[in-house]
Amino acid sequence: MDTIDIDSEMAFSNLEHVRVVMVHTSHPGNIGAAARAMKTMGFRHLVLVQPRDFPSDTATAMASGATDLLDSATVVDSLEDAIADCALVVGASARSRTLPWPLVNPREMAQQVLSMPSGSQIALVLGRERSGLTNDELARCHCHVNIPANPDYSSLNVASAVQVLAYELRMSAQASDAKPKPHWGVPWDQPPATAGQLESLFQHWQQVLVDIDFLNPHNPRTLMSKVRRLILRAQPDEVEANILRGMLSQIDKHLRKP
Amino acid sequence: MDTIDIDSEMAFSNLEHVRVVMVHTSHPGNIGAAARAMKTMGFRHLVLVQPRDFPSDTATAMASGATDLLDSATVVDSLEDAIADCALVVGASARSRTLPWPLVNPREMAQQVLSMPSGSQIALVLGRERSGLTNDELARCHCHVNIPANPDYSSLNVASAVQVLAYELRMSAQASDAKPKPHWGVPWDQPPATAGQLESLFQHWQQVLVDIDFLNPHNPRTLMSKVRRLILRAQPDEVEANILRGMLSQIDKHLRKP
Repeated sequence: MDTIDIDSEMAFSNLEHVRVVMVHTSHPGNIGAAARAMKTMGFRHLVLVQPRDFPSDTATAMASGATDLLDSATVVDSLEDAIADCALVVGASARSRTLPWPLVNPREMAQQVLSMPSGSQIALVLGRERSGLTNDELARCHCHVNIPANPDYSSLNVASAVQVLAYELRMSAQASDAKPKPHWGVPWDQPPATAGQLESLFQHWQQVLVDIDFLNPHNPRTLMSKVRRLILRAQPDEVEANILRGMLSQIDKHLRKP
Repeated sequence: MDTIDIDSEMAFSNLEHVRVVMVHTSHPGNIGAAARAMKTMGFRHLVLVQPRDFPSDTATAMASGATDLLDSATVVDSLEDAIADCALVVGASARSRTLPWPLVNPREMAQQVLSMPSGSQIALVLGRERSGLTNDELARCHCHVNIPANPDYSSLNVASAVQVLAYELRMSAQASDAKPKPHWGVPWDQPPATAGQLESLFQHWQQVLVDIDFLNPHNPRTLMSKVRRLILRAQPDEVEANILRGMLSQIDKHLRKP
């Protein structure tokens, strides 16, 4: 009776490309517990953005049999570095925001992940223990995932959140072992743009908005957030991102001309 | 904008009657972490069968804001006492057993719980950290729940298992509650742009692309189609459409200036 997991690990191939990104984690025990949670669900890639205390004996102790994930964890300086090559970036968000952003529950998140073109790199981003992700960090995500919780006490431990998201991915992969529909309902002819490509696009876009006096750098308000949100929602492919870049470059050129 | 949890807690009334039973837990930290996990998902009733060390400061520390569940936890001498009044008893089981027993995954477990006659008492039973539930204990359960896991490393922490099961109950209760969610998962603060507004936007956009020599009107190829597809996929709201229009107007203005 070797259980329900027999349905080959093939269905899980998209999950191979999922990394968990923990941002500014304070307690090394949470890093270890997250590694254990990940490994139980078959995930391997842990990225730590400026962890306060790592490597750490506490992390190792809490990882139990998952210390290999700690050994192979990548430590980076910025969220940008952690997600640059990712085609889908999902940020865990407990709170509602002033600026609404596409929001999914863990099950919907799993469907999105499973429907990405195969080989796409995917990041699940989790924030600080007390305060989660900043608005700036959340604005780098294609969508936000909210774990449904008790409105009176919604403070999941960060490793527990990793456990729930990883479980939901595994569970959904298993449930939908039948091939999920492709992301936009049809097979797509171009790979999705990566977060790094989009970040360059947004930087360029912002510069152009300043140059044409549309954006006041001293009072930017939510303008760029709204541009980001709009474009991220569409999940541009590489050609589309290049078209937008090309357009901006061409505007630059015309602005320089007398 | 108070998020997806508005759908009254009514749908969760069956969950009121769910207790978590932890059998012979060794580490008090796991009891505390389980209490926290329970409370985040809206559960309150914790029953401890011969815990090795309870009450305990470690449990209290790990419970974070859920110490009220520890205060109200019931400590009993036997599993029998813990489940006597229950109409459904589900035992967590990681291993396959010599004697096959009805086995569900967490999602199926949730469906079973939700479909019980209202007012039925329900127990989720979790075993020892190292060895789980004994065959005798498992034989007291109506069915067993197995959390799908990595076949090479399936050792979930017991509090993580509580988190997953509690999450699945809450998630399923919410999913079966009907009311379709708003389009992007959150109530949106702006109405969607109309097709007419978007058409004006695309006309304007195209004109700008011609003016900056990015689009050759005699050989337009698929450029504008790709712009349309990208923006339409994002389903812009009115403010977003206006931002793009404003940007284009500002480019016009700068192009006219010497």
